[in-house]
Amino acid sequence: MTRQAHRRDRLRAEAAGRGFDAVLVTSLVNVRYLTGFTGSNGAVLVGATAAGDAVATDSRYRIQVGVRAPDLPAVIERAAAVALLKRASGQGMRRVGYESHDVTVDGLRDLAAAAPDVELVSAERAVEGLRAVKDEAEIATLGKACAIADRALAGLLADGGLRAGRSERAVALDLDRRMLELGAAAVSFETIVAAGPAGASPHHRPDDRPLADGDLVVIDFGAEHGGYHSDMTRTVGVGTLDGWQRDLYDVVARAHRAGCAAVIPGASTRAVDAAARSVIDQAGHGAEFGHGLGHGVGLEIHEAPALGPSSAGTLGALMTVTVEPGVYVEGRGGVRIEDTLVVRDGEPELLTTTGRDLITV
Amino acid sequence: MTRQAHRRDRLRAEAAGRGFDAVLVTSLVNVRYLTGFTGSNGAVLVGATAAGDAVATDSRYRIQVGVRAPDLPAVIERAAAVALLKRASGQGMRRVGYESHDVTVDGLRDLAAAAPDVELVSAERAVEGLRAVKDEAEIATLGKACAIADRALAGLLADGGLRAGRSERAVALDLDRRMLELGAAAVSFETIVAAGPAGASPHHRPDDRPLADGDLVVIDFGAEHGGYHSDMTRTVGVGTLDGWQRDLYDVVARAHRAGCAAVIPGASTRAVDAAARSVIDQAGHGAEFGHGLGHGVGLEIHEAPALGPSSAGTLGALMTVTVEPGVYVEGRGGVRIEDTLVVRDGEPELLTTTGRDLITV
Repeated sequence: MTRQAHRRDRLRAEAAGRGFDAVLVTSLVNVRYLTGFTGSNGAVLVGATAAGDAVATDSRYRIQVGVRAPDLPAVIERAAAVALLKRASGQGMRRVGYESHDVTVDGLRDLAAAAPDVELVSAERAVEGLRAVKDEAEIATLGKACAIADRALAGLLADGGLRAGRSERAVALDLDRRMLELGAAAVSFETIVAAGPAGASPHHRPDDRPLADGDLVVIDFGAEHGGYHSDMTRTVGVGTLDGWQRDLYDVVARAHRAGCAAVIPGASTRAVDAAARSVIDQAGHGAEFGHGLGHGVGLEIHEAPALGPSSAGTLGALMTVTVEPGVYVEGRGGVRIEDTLVVRDGEPELLTTTGRDLITV
Repeated sequence: MTRQAHRRDRLRAEAAGRGFDAVLVTSLVNVRYLTGFTGSNGAVLVGATAAGDAVATDSRYRIQVGVRAPDLPAVIERAAAVALLKRASGQGMRRVGYESHDVTVDGLRDLAAAAPDVELVSAERAVEGLRAVKDEAEIATLGKACAIADRALAGLLADGGLRAGRSERAVALDLDRRMLELGAAAVSFETIVAAGPAGASPHHRPDDRPLADGDLVVIDFGAEHGGYHSDMTRTVGVGTLDGWQRDLYDVVARAHRAGCAAVIPGASTRAVDAAARSVIDQAGHGAEFGHGLGHGVGLEIHEAPALGPSSAGTLGALMTVTVEPGVYVEGRGGVRIEDTLVVRDGEPELLTTTGRDLITV
C-alpha cells in the first residue's frame, strides 16, 4: 500500500465517523497529500471503501496523473470536482463531505447543480487535521529542505554576501540562487531581507536600500524540497551594533529558547506561545510582538497547528512547527529568530540548525 | 490621481450600474490592482464615493500598506474582509458586491455573520473584467517581463545550455537562474522542459532524464516583473531530427501564425482559437491539440480572456493574450509555440520576440 493509500484510509475512517458516503477533496495540496498528483487542476474522491476512490484532472495532466497516482482510476475532465461528484452520485452516494474552506461560493453552486441529489456537507478541514501529524518520511523530506536553507545561509555568510553597501534585494536574490543551486525546487516564500528600520516591518519586501553599518538585518527564508517547506529566520548585525540592538537580540533569543523548550507533546498551543511571549512582555516589549509565535509547516508554509495567544488545541508528537518570536521597534528596527522543529517525546528536534547566537559581519 | 484610484473609479462606475452600495474585493491580485498593496492578507472596500474606500490588512503589513496605498485609510485587522464589511455596515451600506469566485463557503458564512444587515451579492468578476484591458504602463511592464524571458533563452542557447546529456531539470534551473539574474522578481510559473516523449505531456515537470540526440524539447517559461507575467514557449531540436518532427513543427508554426493573425479587436475569442485549430485539424492532428489556444496574461499567468473552442466574448484593444497551439503525440513527443501578444488596432504587438523558426542545437 502506498503512503497515499494509507492516508486515504485514515480519511475514510474519519469520514465514516461523520456519516459521509464520501469526501470530495479539492484543495490542491490535499489532493497531492492523498494521491501524489501535483498538477494545477485536480480533485480526489475518497469513498466509503477504497473501490470508490478516484482522482480527476484535465487532459494536460493525463500522463502525469497515471504516473503519480497509478493506484487510482483517473477521470479526465476539466471540471474535475464536478466530474467526481457526478460519479459519486451515480454510485449512489448521497451525503458527501466537501472542503468548505477551499470551495468558493461559485464552486459550490456548480457542484450543487451538477448533483442535486447529493447533500454536500462541510468536511471541516479533515485532511488538514491529518496533515498536522507527519510521518517519518515527511519529516526526512522537510529535514532536507531545512538543510538546504542552512547551507545556503552558511554559504552566503562565508562568501561575504551580507555586507554594508549591498542592497536587500541583492542579498535576497543571492540567497534564493544558493537554495536553488543546492537542490531546492523553489523558495518556500518570497525571501524577507529587512535591514535597519525596515526590520520593524515583519514582512518587509526586500528593496534597493543598501545595508549599512549598524544595521540589524532580519532574514526570513526557506527552501521547498519534495513539496515540503522549510522556514527559518536569523537576524544578523552589520558592523558595529548599539547596546539597544544587542539587548533586543538577547530578549528575542531568550524568548526563542523558552518557546522551543515548551514544544512538547500535550502542550496547549496557547501555552507554547505564552512561554515565549512572557519573556518579551517582561522585557517591556510585549506591544512590539504583534504576531503569533509560530505555525505548523509542511506541504504548506503555514498549516495546522497555529501557535498564538488565541490558538486552540494541543501539540502532538510528529507535528512540525515553527517558533519565531520577534520584536519590532517602529522607526528603529527589529529582531526575529525562527526555527523549524519536530514535536518529539521529550525534547523537540530542531530541523534548522544554524546557530542562534548573534552573528555580526 | 494614482493609477489605482483611477481603477477604483472604474469599478465604482461598474458597481453603481449593478446597484451596489460598495464592492468588497478579497482576491489578493485584485487588491493589488486596486490599491498597490501586495501583502498576503488584505481586502479593499470600494464605496459609492471615493470617501467610502478603505483597505485592510493585518499588523504584519501596517507599514507596507501605508507606503503602497498612501491614499487609502487602512484598517489593521487580521480578518481583513470582515473588518471592512463591518465598516461598510456601520456607514449604512446595505447591498455590497463580493467576489463569489474568491470567497470560500466558510468565508461567506463569516461575512454574513459579521454584518447580518448587509445583503451580499456576487460582483461576478467585475475586477477581472476591468483587468482584461491593460493600460500602456501595464503593457510596458509586461513587455519588460517578456524581454527578460527572451534574453534568458538567448543566453541559454548561446552558452550551450541546451545539449544532449543535460537533464531537463538542469536546463530548467539554468533558465530560471538566468531570468532571476536578468531582473525577474520570480519565475511566472514552474518552468516546463519536456524532452522527447515527455513533450507529449503539455505540463510535464522537468525530471532527471537527459536530453538526447533527436529530441524535440518543449520549453515553456516566463518571468515575473513588477507583478506581470510573461509566457512563452519554444520547441527546440537536439541534434538530428526526423521528418515527422519537422513536419509537426511546421504544422504548429502555421497554426501559430494563423492564430496570431486572428488577434484583432472585435474578433470573437472562439474565432481566434478556430483560426489556429483549423490548421492543426486539417493536418490530421486535431485530436492531439487538447487545450485552448491561449489566455489573457497580466497580474496572473492565466486571466481573462480565455481563447478556446468554447470561450465567450470578443477581443478588445489593449488586451494581452497568449497564442500557444501545440500538438502532442503520445509516446513520441510534442511541439508547442507560444507568444505573448497585445491586441492592437491593426496587427497585434508581439511582446515575446524570440524567433519562431525551428532552432536545432
